[in-house]
Amino acid sequence: MNVSFVGIGLMNGSLSLDLQRLYPDAVMQGISRKEATLSRALDLGLIHKTGDLDHLQDADWVFVSIPVEAIASLLPRILDAIGEQTLVVDFGSTKAAICEAVKHHPKRAQFLAAHPIAGTEYSGPDAAVLELYKNKTIMLCETAHTRVALLDKAKKLFGQLEMNIREMDPVEHDKHIAYVSHLSHITSFMLGKTVLEKETDEQNIFDMAGSGFASTVRLAKSSPEMWMPIFAQNKHNVLESLTEYISNLNAFKDKLAADAHAELLAEMKDINKIKSILEHK
Amino acid sequence: MNVSFVGIGLMNGSLSLDLQRLYPDAVMQGISRKEATLSRALDLGLIHKTGDLDHLQDADWVFVSIPVEAIASLLPRILDAIGEQTLVVDFGSTKAAICEAVKHHPKRAQFLAAHPIAGTEYSGPDAAVLELYKNKTIMLCETAHTRVALLDKAKKLFGQLEMNIREMDPVEHDKHIAYVSHLSHITSFMLGKTVLEKETDEQNIFDMAGSGFASTVRLAKSSPEMWMPIFAQNKHNVLESLTEYISNLNAFKDKLAADAHAELLAEMKDINKIKSILEHK
Repeated sequence: MNVSFVGIGLMNGSLSLDLQRLYPDAVMQGISRKEATLSRALDLGLIHKTGDLDHLQDADWVFVSIPVEAIASLLPRILDAIGEQTLVVDFGSTKAAICEAVKHHPKRAQFLAAHPIAGTEYSGPDAAVLELYKNKTIMLCETAHTRVALLDKAKKLFGQLEMNIREMDPVEHDKHIAYVSHLSHITSFMLGKTVLEKETDEQNIFDMAGSGFASTVRLAKSSPEMWMPIFAQNKHNVLESLTEYISNLNAFKDKLAADAHAELLAEMKDINKIKSILEHK
Repeated sequence: MNVSFVGIGLMNGSLSLDLQRLYPDAVMQGISRKEATLSRALDLGLIHKTGDLDHLQDADWVFVSIPVEAIASLLPRILDAIGEQTLVVDFGSTKAAICEAVKHHPKRAQFLAAHPIAGTEYSGPDAAVLELYKNKTIMLCETAHTRVALLDKAKKLFGQLEMNIREMDPVEHDKHIAYVSHLSHITSFMLGKTVLEKETDEQNIFDMAGSGFASTVRLAKSSPEMWMPIFAQNKHNVLESLTEYISNLNAFKDKLAADAHAELLAEMKDINKIKSILEHK
């Protein structure tokens, strides 16, 4: 089995570790603009050799896990370069623009748009971990546009990774994911910014920040190179979610300023129900 | 050793578990307005018997871990009821109003204002866990107003719990803690609210929410009965931190709307430095 990874950081690196366990004879090829990334991925055993975007004829799989604007711009070129049996799968956190970019490509049927709901706040080859994908959901979009045999092969592989497969329209995907993922990255970055601006004496953060703050600000450690393009590509939905979030914050602030304690208490109790929703997962 | 707990949930319940390991002969008394809490705390072995606020003469320690407005209003009555050698310690998340409430009390020297930077998003007796306080910071305020022998005894106990002791002015405490704790509770509650409002079909949250969202929204599970009074009592600082946070969000939104991608990228890279600060802890 020949696997080509376009981008070899957290997502593809972790995938390689799992695939090497499932398929010990698989040959892993890494493609990246950054020499240092390739060399680190070789050292870590995430890949066996390096390659380039224009020689993908022998690949059984091409997994594309790079910033989403690069996915959209490079996918046509990747599809141009693949062989008859190759399947290209992208792992981008947005799906509409990516599906749009290859809509009319003659090899559209050899592409599968995917978004695994998995990750950590770390990035790069050193962030790769075994079983990142286990028990996680993978969203597949426009599966009717992928050749049936290739789609079945992909579903089998995601099954071997013990992932839960769900299908969704790419426009719907981007709308929902803005709320449950993109927005929380922005709230975290802005929380980090607000505290950093205030606490010029870093010792105060160091001493007074507890596990609650660490949890809430965790996503502010995420890779700006990955996340800025996501916000840009999903701009419309992200702006909508931000507007609603800011409006809720302003309402909370006004109620607190007006000492509307009973109202605030009732509101917080209502929000508490997110506990049972999340813990059902 | 006689220990009285005013409130017997997450904070005092966890403390009781640790103290029972350190002092197997200690007698633990619980005081609460809620019968169900007392009965559950007895069942769980967090306390050995129940008591009331007006009979604290024989207590060596009285730990007060209840909503902060109740701490401020009940502390004078608790001090009235204690014996000559009793030390009263409060674990409230605000410190200025609480210190103010007992400023002129004749037994002020038998009170120590404390804030352990420890906790989880859960509450009540069932949330009590061993070693909640281990390796955590405890902020002490106005220690010069506590009788030296009692202060030394408290510091020794916090040392046995393996806590890091730090002293701070109560007004300064409330200012900093608004940023590194109170604000993140509000950002989390409002994130939960925004997503709940949007995602009326709970299945979408269930499937598409990953570990990043769970981490960012975790504090929205916190007890409204505990947190609403904290926001109210620290109103001035919380409003200030909220204003700055909302202003940062609006600026981010404006830049995204204006496609100021290079600026956003630079800003996010700058915020990334919170990683090294937090991981130094």
